[in-house]
Amino acid sequence: MRLRVINPNTTSAMTCKIGDAAQRIAAPGTNVVAIQPTDGPVSIESHFDEAISAVGVLEEVLAGEREGTDAYVIACFGDPGLLAARELTRAPVIGIAEAAFHAASLISTRFSVVTTLSRTGIIAEHLLEQYGFRHHCRRVRAAEIPVLDLEEDGSAALDRIIDECRRARDEDGIGAIVLGCGGMADLTQSISQEVGLPVVEGVTAAVKLAEALVGLGLGTSKHGDLAFPRPKPFTGRFERYSQLSNDR
Amino acid sequence: MRLRVINPNTTSAMTCKIGDAAQRIAAPGTNVVAIQPTDGPVSIESHFDEAISAVGVLEEVLAGEREGTDAYVIACFGDPGLLAARELTRAPVIGIAEAAFHAASLISTRFSVVTTLSRTGIIAEHLLEQYGFRHHCRRVRAAEIPVLDLEEDGSAALDRIIDECRRARDEDGIGAIVLGCGGMADLTQSISQEVGLPVVEGVTAAVKLAEALVGLGLGTSKHGDLAFPRPKPFTGRFERYSQLSNDR
Amino acid sequence: MRLRVINPNTTSAMTCKIGDAAQRIAAPGTNVVAIQPTDGPVSIESHFDEAISAVGVLEEVLAGEREGTDAYVIACFGDPGLLAARELTRAPVIGIAEAAFHAASLISTRFSVVTTLSRTGIIAEHLLEQYGFRHHCRRVRAAEIPVLDLEEDGSAALDRIIDECRRARDEDGIGAIVLGCGGMADLTQSISQEVGLPVVEGVTAAVKLAEALVGLGLGTSKHGDLAFPRPKPFTGRFERYSQLSNDR
Amino acid sequence: MRLRVINPNTTSAMTCKIGDAAQRIAAPGTNVVAIQPTDGPVSIESHFDEAISAVGVLEEVLAGEREGTDAYVIACFGDPGLLAARELTRAPVIGIAEAAFHAASLISTRFSVVTTLSRTGIIAEHLLEQYGFRHHCRRVRAAEIPVLDLEEDGSAALDRIIDECRRARDEDGIGAIVLGCGGMADLTQSISQEVGLPVVEGVTAAVKLAEALVGLGLGTSKHGDLAFPRPKPFTGRFERYSQLSNDR
Amino acid sequence: MRLRVINPNTTSAMTCKIGDAAQRIAAPGTNVVAIQPTDGPVSIESHFDEAISAVGVLEEVLAGEREGTDAYVIACFGDPGLLAARELTRAPVIGIAEAAFHAASLISTRFSVVTTLSRTGIIAEHLLEQYGFRHHCRRVRAAEIPVLDLEEDGSAALDRIIDECRRARDEDGIGAIVLGCGGMADLTQSISQEVGLPVVEGVTAAVKLAEALVGLGLGTSKHGDLAFPRPKPFTGRFERYSQLSNDR
Amino acid sequence: MRLRVINPNTTSAMTCKIGDAAQRIAAPGTNVVAIQPTDGPVSIESHFDEAISAVGVLEEVLAGEREGTDAYVIACFGDPGLLAARELTRAPVIGIAEAAFHAASLISTRFSVVTTLSRTGIIAEHLLEQYGFRHHCRRVRAAEIPVLDLEEDGSAALDRIIDECRRARDEDGIGAIVLGCGGMADLTQSISQEVGLPVVEGVTAAVKLAEALVGLGLGTSKHGDLAFPRPKPFTGRFERYSQLSNDR
Repeated sequence: MRLRVINPNTTSAMTCKIGDAAQRIAAPGTNVVAIQPTDGPVSIESHFDEAISAVGVLEEVLAGEREGTDAYVIACFGDPGLLAARELTRAPVIGIAEAAFHAASLISTRFSVVTTLSRTGIIAEHLLEQYGFRHHCRRVRAAEIPVLDLEEDGSAALDRIIDECRRARDEDGIGAIVLGCGGMADLTQSISQEVGLPVVEGVTAAVKLAEALVGLGLGTSKHGDLAFPRPKPFTGRFERYSQLSNDR
Repeated sequence: MRLRVINPNTTSAMTCKIGDAAQRIAAPGTNVVAIQPTDGPVSIESHFDEAISAVGVLEEVLAGEREGTDAYVIACFGDPGLLAARELTRAPVIGIAEAAFHAASLISTRFSVVTTLSRTGIIAEHLLEQYGFRHHCRRVRAAEIPVLDLEEDGSAALDRIIDECRRARDEDGIGAIVLGCGGMADLTQSISQEVGLPVVEGVTAAVKLAEALVGLGLGTSKHGDLAFPRPKPFTGRFERYSQLSNDR
Repeated sequence: MRLRVINPNTTSAMTCKIGDAAQRIAAPGTNVVAIQPTDGPVSIESHFDEAISAVGVLEEVLAGEREGTDAYVIACFGDPGLLAARELTRAPVIGIAEAAFHAASLISTRFSVVTTLSRTGIIAEHLLEQYGFRHHCRRVRAAEIPVLDLEEDGSAALDRIIDECRRARDEDGIGAIVLGCGGMADLTQSISQEVGLPVVEGVTAAVKLAEALVGLGLGTSKHGDLAFPRPKPFTGRFERYSQLSNDR
Repeated sequence: MRLRVINPNTTSAMTCKIGDAAQRIAAPGTNVVAIQPTDGPVSIESHFDEAISAVGVLEEVLAGEREGTDAYVIACFGDPGLLAARELTRAPVIGIAEAAFHAASLISTRFSVVTTLSRTGIIAEHLLEQYGFRHHCRRVRAAEIPVLDLEEDGSAALDRIIDECRRARDEDGIGAIVLGCGGMADLTQSISQEVGLPVVEGVTAAVKLAEALVGLGLGTSKHGDLAFPRPKPFTGRFERYSQLSNDR
Repeated sequence: MRLRVINPNTTSAMTCKIGDAAQRIAAPGTNVVAIQPTDGPVSIESHFDEAISAVGVLEEVLAGEREGTDAYVIACFGDPGLLAARELTRAPVIGIAEAAFHAASLISTRFSVVTTLSRTGIIAEHLLEQYGFRHHCRRVRAAEIPVLDLEEDGSAALDRIIDECRRARDEDGIGAIVLGCGGMADLTQSISQEVGLPVVEGVTAAVKLAEALVGLGLGTSKHGDLAFPRPKPFTGRFERYSQLSNDR
Repeated sequence: MRLRVINPNTTSAMTCKIGDAAQRIAAPGTNVVAIQPTDGPVSIESHFDEAISAVGVLEEVLAGEREGTDAYVIACFGDPGLLAARELTRAPVIGIAEAAFHAASLISTRFSVVTTLSRTGIIAEHLLEQYGFRHHCRRVRAAEIPVLDLEEDGSAALDRIIDECRRARDEDGIGAIVLGCGGMADLTQSISQEVGLPVVEGVTAAVKLAEALVGLGLGTSKHGDLAFPRPKPFTGRFERYSQLSNDR
């Protein structure tokens, strides 16, 4: 199967990291295409960054449709553009926050999230509410590190994340920790070893959930509110979307 | 005060209608600027349309900031880009779905929503959940008319909306009806007379709520998760956002 | 418009303060009538005080109806008698707790309440639940000062409130603070300056929401469960209510 | 034990009926005192009626305290003044709506309420939410009969209630029915026989719950938010409450 | 009435203690039969223990049916097998967690639970959610003592429980404490005296609720989802259940 | 990987069917062992059946542990014994109701459940609440067919299920249907073709989720409330559980 892993930001180093993590975890028959939009923010740390990045995500889904794609992963913890992306395809589309919450709830009764900046905690809270996991999550914690610090060698980022994970383990009454950023995709093992309880990372979780749905023959429902968008004119920079049709 | 009413779609006839409704309801000292993005969908009837329209909304907020703006209204019932828009300004930003829900909850204990297409009902449901009004809304109903039918003279759209409102009144055990589309801004009075219970329309409600907040000296909090976005590079079409700074 | 601001307790100094705050924030065309019941408690700090005060609130609404009133504000943070008051009039009726919650949720994603005594926190909690803002409020905090201490010059009350507001700001992960007592109506600015994030006060918020609803032509729904009470005999002290009729 | 059953309205026929039902169900050692306020509405069918009736309820609790009372029942389905009443005494105070919900949830997983007028349904809904039984109640139904019709011999009221109960049984997927009015206290058996599933009536349920709490040595907590009200001056008609003290 | 109090574990000392507590609190006409299964765990401290113990509970209900039983109490704080037990009888069946939550919510607005081991807190949380008391419970606390330590004279268990109760009283903003283990049935008074706020214990609460329901003539509904199980073959050790029939 | 699929009832034909469905959907490297307890009910249609069947489920998990097992599926829609089973192993354990809800929520925004008998609907409702999917499920529907009718050739069961699925599709405003019984594992395709929207079946979904978790290296958390049960004596038939230890 062709799996398109979309890094919603434009930092190619992060795309590589995410792609590597995805490919490593993928089943033998899964062909991972890790890409990023050409246009957008270098990192996603606000509602604004997220709204802009959604355009790139959707364009990458449209590109994926032209190439033939069996499943999509949106590799930013805010799941930007998730429901819109689902409208564009019959393939399953999985967000990494969503994937991590689902996986964590299958191996523990309660979990905490450790994310980068506290200002993005509200995004995780809204997703927890929408997806139904509000009561499974004890607490959304932040290590207070900017996303791109995760790209710097020797940065103190890992230590701070591990410290916050330890606090979560000791104070929150949980069984698992969810890592709240796509940029942590390569840290799962280090953190897990240090912290000593299951650490769930979204990119890898999303890859396996995507494979699972494809294996089940389940794609995004085209009955009801995730059907293809009604074709219509778009203007200006977005004019090309006028060509979208329901003939898929 | 300068009030910028942003029609998130690109249909200028709808912008005019919305602007007229806003100006008619505005206080004498309120200067309504009704605009629309140059780039985007002609109507918003899906998550995809909404995600794309958010870019235009945000650009119109940035434009408003350059001109000096005291408050913003986002005039599409899905409140596209609302939290992102709030990050960009100290001024209050009000979505019309949000405004209508708030107003309806102040004059009734339970209300129903009558929107255009049932496929967008899920958007209203998610907003009701996020804003806290899930239990105040008895039912989200659709008249099953495309948004742009509201722009056509002599269309049967009004009749269908009134029919659906009557069913809401008779079956739902409610005290008020919320009209679920910015394109209905000119229909409130006709519907209200026919249906005989309070009909809440979002554009007008948002204008008055925006005036109320400005009158109170309350703007979007810059403490915490609605603070200005951290400045950072954007690439491609969105490169200009790299200039955004916190010096506001 | 005639706006009747009802202080549910019988302390006239507080009525003056509330009336001043209301008049200062009101639009030029708004004529504020600030009154208090002749019968009732001097302050409201328990369910009992609140239940008794509701009678005075309702009598002041009935008085307001005889005089012609366009909107009502109930100026105690427990919103005593709110739904009953709504039944008595076609005009909008706004409680100050309600108003403050609505306003705070429009400028922040999460807020905390700072009230007087912790024993009244449960009243705020029940209102948050009923109005839908349970998840928008991080915490209900008390400065542990009796209501009437707010009337004493040079009392330490202001300092304690400011201290509690600072703790809310630093510990709760919020964007705004709601002041939980009508007697704090004159303190908003001082507190806001000290604390450095938006401080929402209910009396002023209610005045502006009342003006907004009147401007929208929206009054309390008389369809369904807020219709005028069915006329019926009352006995004893309440006999005069036997005269209430639906001919309004 | 002395059990004071307070009919919050002033219709003595209803007080008799309620008192009879209470005495019939009471344990041998329970001395039922069924009383009604001298001042208030003849029936309770609105928020307004309920707010006024709360005063009478509280006065009857104060009278009960002077006489020595072991437990109180508030015999109107809106539980008027319940939390305020609890503040006034160390004895347990049980509302009949509350009691019926508790009992129904112990013998079924889901129940429906059949009340008198649909306009009072919102009162039941708010109580279900506050008490925690929102999801246990499938539906609040109304037979659309005024409360005092229940006092008229040969009225069609019983038939209409039975009809509505049958619809609840057949359509709602429930295991029990809650009768939503104190005036139905004498109808339980007739309805139960006709309908063929458990019918829970609040007056009787409250009597037995009150006996249970007294038997357990449990009274209203005086720690925290149900402590005796802080003593303070009251004015006018309510001046006598100035004498209340904490010395109990 | 015959009341069968089932201790779901197999420690007879605990059965005695529970039986004593039940008999002491029971009304004169209540004949308490306290028993325990012959097969099962000596204490219940996990989901596994609980699942196994449910079999014993159900067999004791079946035995109770053969002997004629008017009501059942399941005396373990996880309420093991509660809904299954209800299916087997027309009599009321009360779990002690359930009973304690109900009683605590009638005398306070908010309570905390103090249980034995933190690992069983999740069981209490799930029950609070299912029964509707999630928001009435501020916190589930554990004294971190194994259940059987409660059986040892001079153990430090009582002190640790009292310490945890004091912390609950001082930190949680509550009006009552719920003791979260059937093995604490003899400690209520000691704890209550030390802690100074109402302490609700489940065995005693369940006895009185069971008496209340029997007094009301209310038994488990046989309409709908608690009807007798459909008769069917069982194999192996459970073959005898093939004889169960609906002819009851 | 070794995947143990436990049919909690004792009908071997159903075990075969479930095993076939599991093996067909499994990845090449997955070795499916489909088994059933020797002791228990032939079908599970009540809380009682479910409680008894949990014992067999747990014994099959213990047997699986002795043989070396990488993941478990509990193949009855009530997920009997799920949390207890998780305590017994480091491997992931997936219930089929849980799996189906998760999968359906990834391809649609709202779904309905079509189960066998309405009396088991409450089991699905409780699971939806506990897992967080209450608001994702529009309705739990029953085709009113006993479970074992699904085993009979030429029975009308399939037609009735398809009819109910069509009603769900047309009336519920959903994007997907969840089949609410392990015995429907072979019907997914037929139903899906007839009904024309995604049909999610739990056995197959659970197999793929189990593979996904194993692929991720995630097993049941042994930190906190799903840790191995504390070793302790069991009596009677369950004495062998006294041997369980934490040395795993």
